[in-house]
Amino acid sequence: MRQRFEELLCRLGAISDLGKAAALLAWDAETKMPPAGAEARAEQRATLTRIAHELQVAPELGALLEELRPFEEAHEHDSFEASVIRVARRDYEKAVRVPPELRAELTRTAAQGYHAWLEAREERDYGVLLPRLERGLELLRRYAACFEPDDPYDALLDDYEPGMKAAEVEAVLERLKAELPPLIAAVPGPVDDSCLRRRYPPEDQRRFALAVLERWGMDAQAWRLDDTVHPFATSLAPGDIRLTTNLHEEGLSGVLSCLHEFGHGLYERQVDPAYARTPLADGASSAFHESQSRLWENLVGRNLATWRFLYPELREAFPEQLGDVPLETFHRALNTVEPTMRRVDADEVTYTLHVILRFELERALLAGTLAPRDLPEAFDAKMREYLGLEPADPVEGVLQDVHWSELLFGYFPTYALGNVISVQLWERAAADLGDLDRQLERGEFAPLREWLREHVHRFGRALTPQQLLERAVGGPLDPEPYLAYLRRKLEQVYGTPVT
Amino acid sequence: MRQRFEELLCRLGAISDLGKAAALLAWDAETKMPPAGAEARAEQRATLTRIAHELQVAPELGALLEELRPFEEAHEHDSFEASVIRVARRDYEKAVRVPPELRAELTRTAAQGYHAWLEAREERDYGVLLPRLERGLELLRRYAACFEPDDPYDALLDDYEPGMKAAEVEAVLERLKAELPPLIAAVPGPVDDSCLRRRYPPEDQRRFALAVLERWGMDAQAWRLDDTVHPFATSLAPGDIRLTTNLHEEGLSGVLSCLHEFGHGLYERQVDPAYARTPLADGASSAFHESQSRLWENLVGRNLATWRFLYPELREAFPEQLGDVPLETFHRALNTVEPTMRRVDADEVTYTLHVILRFELERALLAGTLAPRDLPEAFDAKMREYLGLEPADPVEGVLQDVHWSELLFGYFPTYALGNVISVQLWERAAADLGDLDRQLERGEFAPLREWLREHVHRFGRALTPQQLLERAVGGPLDPEPYLAYLRRKLEQVYGTPVT
Repeated sequence: MRQRFEELLCRLGAISDLGKAAALLAWDAETKMPPAGAEARAEQRATLTRIAHELQVAPELGALLEELRPFEEAHEHDSFEASVIRVARRDYEKAVRVPPELRAELTRTAAQGYHAWLEAREERDYGVLLPRLERGLELLRRYAACFEPDDPYDALLDDYEPGMKAAEVEAVLERLKAELPPLIAAVPGPVDDSCLRRRYPPEDQRRFALAVLERWGMDAQAWRLDDTVHPFATSLAPGDIRLTTNLHEEGLSGVLSCLHEFGHGLYERQVDPAYARTPLADGASSAFHESQSRLWENLVGRNLATWRFLYPELREAFPEQLGDVPLETFHRALNTVEPTMRRVDADEVTYTLHVILRFELERALLAGTLAPRDLPEAFDAKMREYLGLEPADPVEGVLQDVHWSELLFGYFPTYALGNVISVQLWERAAADLGDLDRQLERGEFAPLREWLREHVHRFGRALTPQQLLERAVGGPLDPEPYLAYLRRKLEQVYGTPVT
Repeated sequence: MRQRFEELLCRLGAISDLGKAAALLAWDAETKMPPAGAEARAEQRATLTRIAHELQVAPELGALLEELRPFEEAHEHDSFEASVIRVARRDYEKAVRVPPELRAELTRTAAQGYHAWLEAREERDYGVLLPRLERGLELLRRYAACFEPDDPYDALLDDYEPGMKAAEVEAVLERLKAELPPLIAAVPGPVDDSCLRRRYPPEDQRRFALAVLERWGMDAQAWRLDDTVHPFATSLAPGDIRLTTNLHEEGLSGVLSCLHEFGHGLYERQVDPAYARTPLADGASSAFHESQSRLWENLVGRNLATWRFLYPELREAFPEQLGDVPLETFHRALNTVEPTMRRVDADEVTYTLHVILRFELERALLAGTLAPRDLPEAFDAKMREYLGLEPADPVEGVLQDVHWSELLFGYFPTYALGNVISVQLWERAAADLGDLDRQLERGEFAPLREWLREHVHRFGRALTPQQLLERAVGGPLDPEPYLAYLRRKLEQVYGTPVT
């Protein structure tokens, strides 16, 4: 049996290696590849993905997993052996439910959709994307049906949030939708954020961001930071974590984005190293991953306590830009609340409304109660209703995000759930660690990092997101801490109690 | 039939994609990867290599190639179709002759050998490598036997020089061995190369090297230059050529190494783009590849005509280092002839003696007429005999190159053959292009580059090295042009006729 388990590890190792090689192909394409390599790169990625999938649905793998049932049962739920088999079986059973032709067509349509999206933005014409989206939704409905869910949206969501149902997401988002608009309405007008409209030389930003991340736990032995257009983090191995950023001339959003990506990277870095080359070596879910990036970007990175420690360093790096700016002014500027047209520019408070809008629209599209041709109007209507803004054209509106064109339905809510989870974890860490703010003020970031390793990161995918949250915070998903946090933050930034 | 041919292209495309993905894993490991990623990277590379090999020996591929025989015969020898099938069949037939266990053990022993070599150098003790080398030779003899060659060395050589026999190599090298020592003996003593012992800031070297390579045909659309420890060139696609270099503080050897790697890169860049994702998309042989790097490094890069054009630019980049150095002094310094202990430091004239020494020793090792335990003494004896130098210890002697530890027997001679071929091509290009030196003096590098595309590069592996040489220069391998070139060069550098 032990030998058969070793054979399983071998098979899973090869699948993991192909995935990591594909991740390098992707990282390189976004950071290093000469432009003329793009076409060949797409073929290379497609080939690796196809072969990994073939290994993932191999009947021999299924038979091996069956054979190993008694072995799994002979081991504790939390043991390495039982966890690997349990998670591998889940992956296998999901993978084999989808006919290869359907999967191939989904991949093709997503790729075409992406190109149509680029073209639609170029032409400022949603009509270019429309037929792809119609076709994509048809395929997604067939994909969802493979899993015989009560609600088709559940099947799509499950790819990002294993085990979560659309109804649960809806309950959380409904609560936020009720509470956020009055919060925003109570904001007494924009703060002075002129200090973030100054010019900050990108090389100085990079130096500062790296200095911060080194304090937080990044080191050159196992991490890199490179330039890209759309920042992301990727892990090529437990000891090979890659962050990317886009440092603009104006403002410090590139630095904040480094802090965000660090959260993703740290999660991967702190998964139990014994899980390497198994399906356990990844985050528990998209929302959990997002909770980690949001935690370091917002709860640490926009925290007054953190800047009490870091601001002298920042000022030293940018004396001309910040010499005349008191800490409190800088912190307020970092935390301005004001509805923005683009989701990616949104502050902590309005962000979730962008997500709710998209969640509602994508559920309606999938259910067929909203026709794709009516999407732009529906999008604009919700922008007006939730954020009081009127997109000037489809590029500002329905075409601002790439997700739908690539058929990533079910992904958007994980951004909002990530915010919710980040505060639940923060509260528990603060309770466990004593005065967390005091630690940040003294530049002591290690206790928080180690708390996250111990209570979240090390488990990788061995626990479901539900189990992980229950063990880490002692309860289920709960938007109240997040709402309370936003209220405290607004009070701190705007000086007056809000709501 | 056409459909079956398309199926063949699909299968070959996947093998190619895996190879290119493995090449990216290797490039990244040498240029970008954080050190802690090394162990996982080795697994990733092994997995991709293993899967590519499985596809390469798949019985379905063999059956398809059989089935396509009439299709091949219905096409001209030089056609894309016939060439792909012919070369793919050669690769398949070679691959299936080797039992998988033997291949796996060769790979393992080579990896262990590499680590033993590192350790042996560290300890300055050949004894650390000896058992690996003994085991490796045993495996290499079994490997060679799979091909039932007249001379086991032929089988190893064939992996680098398809179709070439050890006896042919020997004939060329014997001729050089007879002619080179008197040439070297006639050198009237070292020239003043103090200008190449000065400090050149690496960033300025990089800027200059890139400016030169841009003139030669490198562009950011399809090329990169990165730093590494041991320079190399790799192609990830026809439009994705990567050069690496190691720019030292002292001297300009890093710039010369850029010119060398450019030659490799240009070859890959100029293969017929229609050959992408087929086995035709590569150089004809290792010697042909080396001929291209040597041509740009030596025949162009150490040429007085080239520097008549480039030297003002170089002087402008390094006014302190070269302001007092006349062109002729600089050119002589670039072309000093003086025996060196290390092969990689050797000049154009003595280089081949390093290769001859290694060729003779590796043939004797393989034949069993030299025992691995006697190798260090044999190495030192030939160093004394051919170069008049006495290695102080094994690191200066037998451990200076990595090749044998990694079981790359049969590779060394391709360096010397590359020199020979480079001059044969040069002579023909000069005859076709008119006054080549005059073109270089005017900074016109495009005619030479295009000549190489037309007569060498575009064919990729579609022609055998023998066919390619015959078509390009109208004759077989011939060391005489190379010898004549060296005599001219020495006369130019030392001012007096040599021999």
